[in-house]
Amino acid sequence: MSLLVVGSIGIDTVETPSARRADILGGSAVYFAYAASYFTQVQLVGVVGSDFPAEHRALLQSREIDLTGLEVADGKTFRWTGKYHENMNDRDTLEVHLNVFGNFNPKVPAAFQSSDFLFLANTVPAQQAKVLQQMKKRPKFVAADTMNLWIETAREDLDALLKQIDCLVINDSEARLYTDQYELLRAGKAIQAKGPKTVIIKKGEHGALVVSQDGNFSIPAHPLEFVVDPTGAGDTFAGGIMGYLAASGSVTRDSLRRAVAYGSVVASFTCQDFSLDALKKTSRADIDKRFKELLELVHIPA
Amino acid sequence: MSLLVVGSIGIDTVETPSARRADILGGSAVYFAYAASYFTQVQLVGVVGSDFPAEHRALLQSREIDLTGLEVADGKTFRWTGKYHENMNDRDTLEVHLNVFGNFNPKVPAAFQSSDFLFLANTVPAQQAKVLQQMKKRPKFVAADTMNLWIETAREDLDALLKQIDCLVINDSEARLYTDQYELLRAGKAIQAKGPKTVIIKKGEHGALVVSQDGNFSIPAHPLEFVVDPTGAGDTFAGGIMGYLAASGSVTRDSLRRAVAYGSVVASFTCQDFSLDALKKTSRADIDKRFKELLELVHIPA
Repeated sequence: MSLLVVGSIGIDTVETPSARRADILGGSAVYFAYAASYFTQVQLVGVVGSDFPAEHRALLQSREIDLTGLEVADGKTFRWTGKYHENMNDRDTLEVHLNVFGNFNPKVPAAFQSSDFLFLANTVPAQQAKVLQQMKKRPKFVAADTMNLWIETAREDLDALLKQIDCLVINDSEARLYTDQYELLRAGKAIQAKGPKTVIIKKGEHGALVVSQDGNFSIPAHPLEFVVDPTGAGDTFAGGIMGYLAASGSVTRDSLRRAVAYGSVVASFTCQDFSLDALKKTSRADIDKRFKELLELVHIPA
Repeated sequence: MSLLVVGSIGIDTVETPSARRADILGGSAVYFAYAASYFTQVQLVGVVGSDFPAEHRALLQSREIDLTGLEVADGKTFRWTGKYHENMNDRDTLEVHLNVFGNFNPKVPAAFQSSDFLFLANTVPAQQAKVLQQMKKRPKFVAADTMNLWIETAREDLDALLKQIDCLVINDSEARLYTDQYELLRAGKAIQAKGPKTVIIKKGEHGALVVSQDGNFSIPAHPLEFVVDPTGAGDTFAGGIMGYLAASGSVTRDSLRRAVAYGSVVASFTCQDFSLDALKKTSRADIDKRFKELLELVHIPA
């Protein structure tokens, strides 16, 4: 089934303890769409400036991502510069230039307005809600991401959005901030009480906890010997989940679990290089192979 | 099969953000033995002072723990006072009084010297090695715990011990300290290269990673809505593992995975109250019920 993502497209500069890479492709919608493209055709709505390199556009097209909703605005593309600490989990944002993303008013093309699966990548909650309003029919499954900034500055809008979505994907620290509950099970349940039937709490290197009406689910991250750059891991995690769900056509207890596992696998590849460089070398067969390894990693014989 | 544990027996005072409990039963061997007693008969070697309350001894006997190796020395029992931070994962040791544990020279009773399973709870590595030397035959499976203090002050003795054991159980931060590797998979492999075929890395609320010749294994902690006191969680985790393994009689890929899952379950009960108070109310049936829930929590349909 069709999958639509609305979110940021950016040019990143990333510094880790061992390396630095300037002007690389990033943005939540880009990471999400690339990850989801292993499973289904993706429709992307976003904005770039006139400086957006043709090679990046070509890369997305090579994955058959539908760029009908890619707006090119006068000005520069969104830019983010970040620096990771020694543990590769914590990072500081050094610079943010919203540029054309600052005035972005997402317009969902007519051809996308009947999509069955919708992912509202992290942005102002009121804007996420406006995207949902543009849909001709209520999608089968709507998921959203958010961040500490909106929890702190736009909580009412976020609460309102949560009443309209099926699933929230959120970091552990943000789930704690949003609910004032330290234990993630309680935090997840508190978010669930705000609306979404499913809450997926991302725990970075520790995997994810899914609080769901169909039973809670815990999954570790695929253990990596070397993490090069975790930027985009959360977005590719969500992309793998939504891509798999859209491909399978329905959200059941079993398809959700498999989807989260696929998301975890795609995210693990993302961390093995900067930007989309590791994913560019990753085939669907590679993903399926690691999915089987993950099944093996978590298997407890009854 | 028989299971022997050698370790500390203590009186603890524990402060958490919401409560404080003075003079409660603690110590690594106590927690370990109580947890293992759900699965098999446990032999305990340790020392207490003449002030050790009869009720604590009776509690251990009520679990059919063999106290033939419990030495009563002139003086006071080992005492520890700790304070947990808001997140309940980090803690500060406020006071340690080794008392009779400071001069403890463990003597393994003749009846225990042929035990098949041996757990060397956390203490000076040279002393752990001396216990192993007292065994009439090499046990089928020897596991040990350690801590940052010995990694920093007795590394050579610890390295020597690792050549003689089958399994090391260690915290994530200690595994990183010991190996100077941040990624736990690399840390586990580095420890494995020092001797033990199996390395169980404890990650607190995030569960555990098992690096093993029979394939790596990752398990989450049973998610709790309320953590009252995590003291003893690591020791009861190890106790559940070793108890289950001793009961099953052999260490295979499958029995090790089930054992780690049982360890995780017993540890989760431990966190639900101070000292052994939650376990005292927990039956084997309760443990089996939560074991099934854990299987369900991690299950990914193929």
